[in-house]
Amino acid sequence: MSTFVLVHGAWHDGSAWEKTVRHLESNGHKAFAPTMAGHGKSAPRNVDHAQCTDSIVRAIVERDLRDFVLVGHSFGGTVICKVAEQIPERIRRLVFGNAFVLKDGNGLMDEVPANYVALFEKLFQDSPDGTIMVPFPIWRESFVNDADLETAKWTYSQLSPEPYQPCKDKLDLKKFYSLEIPRSFINCTEDIALPPGEWGWHPRMSSRLGVYRLVQMPGSHETIYTNPALLADKIIEAGRD
Amino acid sequence: MSTFVLVHGAWHDGSAWEKTVRHLESNGHKAFAPTMAGHGKSAPRNVDHAQCTDSIVRAIVERDLRDFVLVGHSFGGTVICKVAEQIPERIRRLVFGNAFVLKDGNGLMDEVPANYVALFEKLFQDSPDGTIMVPFPIWRESFVNDADLETAKWTYSQLSPEPYQPCKDKLDLKKFYSLEIPRSFINCTEDIALPPGEWGWHPRMSSRLGVYRLVQMPGSHETIYTNPALLADKIIEAGRD
Amino acid sequence: MSTFVLVHGAWHDGSAWEKTVRHLESNGHKAFAPTMAGHGKSAPRNVDHAQCTDSIVRAIVERDLRDFVLVGHSFGGTVICKVAEQIPERIRRLVFGNAFVLKDGNGLMDEVPANYVALFEKLFQDSPDGTIMVPFPIWRESFVNDADLETAKWTYSQLSPEPYQPCKDKLDLKKFYSLEIPRSFINCTEDIALPPGEWGWHPRMSSRLGVYRLVQMPGSHETIYTNPALLADKIIEAGRD
Repeated sequence: MSTFVLVHGAWHDGSAWEKTVRHLESNGHKAFAPTMAGHGKSAPRNVDHAQCTDSIVRAIVERDLRDFVLVGHSFGGTVICKVAEQIPERIRRLVFGNAFVLKDGNGLMDEVPANYVALFEKLFQDSPDGTIMVPFPIWRESFVNDADLETAKWTYSQLSPEPYQPCKDKLDLKKFYSLEIPRSFINCTEDIALPPGEWGWHPRMSSRLGVYRLVQMPGSHETIYTNPALLADKIIEAGRD
Repeated sequence: MSTFVLVHGAWHDGSAWEKTVRHLESNGHKAFAPTMAGHGKSAPRNVDHAQCTDSIVRAIVERDLRDFVLVGHSFGGTVICKVAEQIPERIRRLVFGNAFVLKDGNGLMDEVPANYVALFEKLFQDSPDGTIMVPFPIWRESFVNDADLETAKWTYSQLSPEPYQPCKDKLDLKKFYSLEIPRSFINCTEDIALPPGEWGWHPRMSSRLGVYRLVQMPGSHETIYTNPALLADKIIEAGRD
Repeated sequence: MSTFVLVHGAWHDGSAWEKTVRHLESNGHKAFAPTMAGHGKSAPRNVDHAQCTDSIVRAIVERDLRDFVLVGHSFGGTVICKVAEQIPERIRRLVFGNAFVLKDGNGLMDEVPANYVALFEKLFQDSPDGTIMVPFPIWRESFVNDADLETAKWTYSQLSPEPYQPCKDKLDLKKFYSLEIPRSFINCTEDIALPPGEWGWHPRMSSRLGVYRLVQMPGSHETIYTNPALLADKIIEAGRD
């Protein structure tokens, strides 16, 4: 029996993990999916990356969780690296699920291709509250490419605008890169949220983990919605000793 | 219910899609697989790329097909790009199945590795009628690597020599690259007709599509023969809104 | 009915193929898995690459095997290339299973990334008998990433230290690269024993084979242990005419 802490990505909140949590629990595990500061339909958006991290650390410490597997999806990868720096002794293993593993000193925006930079800057400039919202056509083709249109629309309805500041904040990751916590990378083979190749998730992000375990599964960036049962199985494979 | 127009690749004619058409129809869709000018066992071979394109446009307009998904396989990718330039308003979505998405100004021969260029030039020079015929050993290993020998031989018997001119013609694709028709790319993960990596189908060809939907399936370049049922399923996934 | 000669990789001996042999036999084939000189729990370790090769050639000639498929796993790839140079007329097809296909003049150590070079040099210098033993944490994460911990430990118990000299020996492969024996490459898609990308098995190694057949399957570098039934199926697919 393991304990999993599941950290969501951009536009999501903890509720995105609902079905994954259920599958993990039905396999005899415990799972918690806190919502980061600045995320969720009604939360105020004026947060930076440190506040995102602190809110996850707080959720873990309040429950006094120990010896757990810390899972990050997408943007959540940047957060679990910083959480690991604060409370390394509580973490049994880190699992990055098509997640950012930033180079020391970079922010997320330093690691996405120019077309995303241009799009997000424009969305930010047009936004009244410093957020960016992924346009549906991009979401439908690049994020939930394995869903039918009805599912794609439903998943889009679950999203809320992402505060831009945490995506821009440059992160000091020197301590993270000195940690010796075991780590795994789950790669969904049809994930094109980052374009495959030079800018792709795998092996670009995964290779930065040093000695790591690779687990792959079919599916898009959003198997959290389109295949939560298999995602839970793969989180178990990735998270075991 | 959707309508699919299926455009074959080199050495093939419309009959290559026979089983795929049947599977699409058994799923409630309509499907047409015209044969390009210069293709099929008995057609005269003195055609260029424009004539290939025009023959497909004519087949579509004669049937007055509208709101259809236009699918191109391999060389057929170069043709559907030019068809889309002529009748964009009729096309709901473009689907490239391990298909060429040429750079503006290139011909197919500009986008294959040097060993193919040398082979095809030699075949062309030795040909009485300006055609090239893929040699069986290359077909067996690089095109139908997922077939047993008997199937490989049967598929080879279905082929006929490819007119070389359409492979050499350089294509003005400026209009294609300005079109906003939604597009998908189907990648068969064991397709080595183009060598994986620097010269591979995916992401080299797919990435040129801008925002596109990726669908993958196991199999060789010729799942049209070796797995038409799954190919039909994936065409449906790739072609839906 | 085919005959397969299965050549193990580093740290292994012929017994690693036990279950694969059983599956090949239950499919009506014959299979032999000789142990290389310098390998196996009790063999003396003072061997070079030529002795590894010679021991396999001897095992084949003693049984007077002909018209067989020669399969090499990992380091075994370097050996089957040299075996093929000695007895090409006996070999129907070469199958490389996530195996090294060295450039002419290179040794295995010339084709692994710097972190492995540093690790293996250190292991060698600390070794009383000129061997290197892969540390369990690397084995567990990078070689048997698809196994649970219990299986990982059991597989590790099957290993024995690898003589380092055969990994360093630079191989003249001019004759190998002139041979016209058909060849296949089996790629396990979660194999990270070599890091995916620039240093990966596929297409780096496979592309050196010229015209070759690609067969892929899910799994780690050690499907010999974690999925021998599927591995046997894929060896049959890779080995057929």
